[in-house]
Amino acid sequence: MRQNALLRSGKGLGTPGTARKKAPVAVVAPAAEERDDHFALRHGVPCAGVHLIVDLHGAQGLDDIDLIEATLRRCVTAARATLLHIHLHHFHPNGVSGVAVLAESHISIHTWPDAGYAALDVFMCGKADPDACIPILRAAFRAKRVAVKELLRGRTADD
Amino acid sequence: MRQNALLRSGKGLGTPGTARKKAPVAVVAPAAEERDDHFALRHGVPCAGVHLIVDLHGAQGLDDIDLIEATLRRCVTAARATLLHIHLHHFHPNGVSGVAVLAESHISIHTWPDAGYAALDVFMCGKADPDACIPILRAAFRAKRVAVKELLRGRTADD
Repeated sequence: MRQNALLRSGKGLGTPGTARKKAPVAVVAPAAEERDDHFALRHGVPCAGVHLIVDLHGAQGLDDIDLIEATLRRCVTAARATLLHIHLHHFHPNGVSGVAVLAESHISIHTWPDAGYAALDVFMCGKADPDACIPILRAAFRAKRVAVKELLRGRTADD
Repeated sequence: MRQNALLRSGKGLGTPGTARKKAPVAVVAPAAEERDDHFALRHGVPCAGVHLIVDLHGAQGLDDIDLIEATLRRCVTAARATLLHIHLHHFHPNGVSGVAVLAESHISIHTWPDAGYAALDVFMCGKADPDACIPILRAAFRAKRVAVKELLRGRTADD
């Protein structure tokens, strides 16, 4: 059973006011999480992981940080991945950047609400299913167009 | 001057023991950071950002979490980007996953030390310079081979 070593380590979010000299402290978890298998098999090709480059066009809700967080969590569940850490940042005047760090790699999102555009990466190794995220993203953000490019990371033949 | 709203919000890293039911809480910063310009120009092509897919082969130090953190920070500085949050996770028996969330998007890293392989993403918009990260990564991890693929995210013509 995976334990979330991250929270137990609890290594500082830092002290307000110290941020400008040295950027936010890294939260470093002790070595406890088992990675869910190292290599994936995609269409019969062994690789370190499957990396989906996802672009949403004509999308809505791209400044709704609660929607974005909930959607990332639903993606993780649907992909049968394990969420280790999630961080979202709301920009001024609008726009959100966020990353969900997974035992199987990560999902990232960067939104440009005025342009109705969001750039996501869904990178998963092991037995997690990155494709399961696509319909969730399409529906959550009511995207008019979803472009998906697939990269097999860590193939020995070529990159 | 950018203020690090993230630390001031300090929204919980959660309580040890609660992690298993609900995954680690999202750290959500109030809307304060100005994004460093929305669109980039790459070879004369406007896009939301430049996304470098970087694969290191025959690399070393891939289980050294301090080296990895320091290297990510050096990359951010060299790229003239702004670090908002950094998170690293050490797996058992080895391997590190990490993400640096930037005002200009993110840098991610996932390492497979036994294979001497690391998968990185350097995604930056605005005026930050993602290319500056490449020589730093090559040197820090003494990679025998560095493969870089460039994606222009958010082009309206195609993705």
